[in-house]
Amino acid sequence: MDVRSRLAANLRRLRGEHGWSQEEYADRAGIHRTYVSDIERGARNPTISVVEKLAVPFAVTASDLLA
Amino acid sequence: MDVRSRLAANLRRLRGEHGWSQEEYADRAGIHRTYVSDIERGARNPTISVVEKLAVPFAVTASDLLA
Repeated sequence: MDVRSRLAANLRRLRGEHGWSQEEYADRAGIHRTYVSDIERGARNPTISVVEKLAVPFAVTASDLLA
Repeated sequence: MDVRSRLAANLRRLRGEHGWSQEEYADRAGIHRTYVSDIERGARNPTISVVEKLAVPFAVTASDLLA
């Protein structure tokens, strides 16, 4: 699985575990909802700074989100 | 330390452990030498696909490079 697919799967799993909608999670991460949606489909190639923002609401690291 | 600084430190450390110049490493990763130089200074915000390419010569994962 490539790194975009791993990120997508981790986001979907963690967001589900927290019971957050894409919109609620996007607000918490400070990222637009459509961008979260695209990342969860593996349709985007985000920068590492974006991955760091995505990690904050889950209290994990950017490294964790790509593992 | 932010994610760009962690990536920079890991690249410098791993490249040193392998005894590769920036040019030799860049060739192995398929990335331009000046881009490698910028990333090692924390002066770039690469995409996760670039980080995946950077990981290949070291036989580690993109996740490892951000840890």
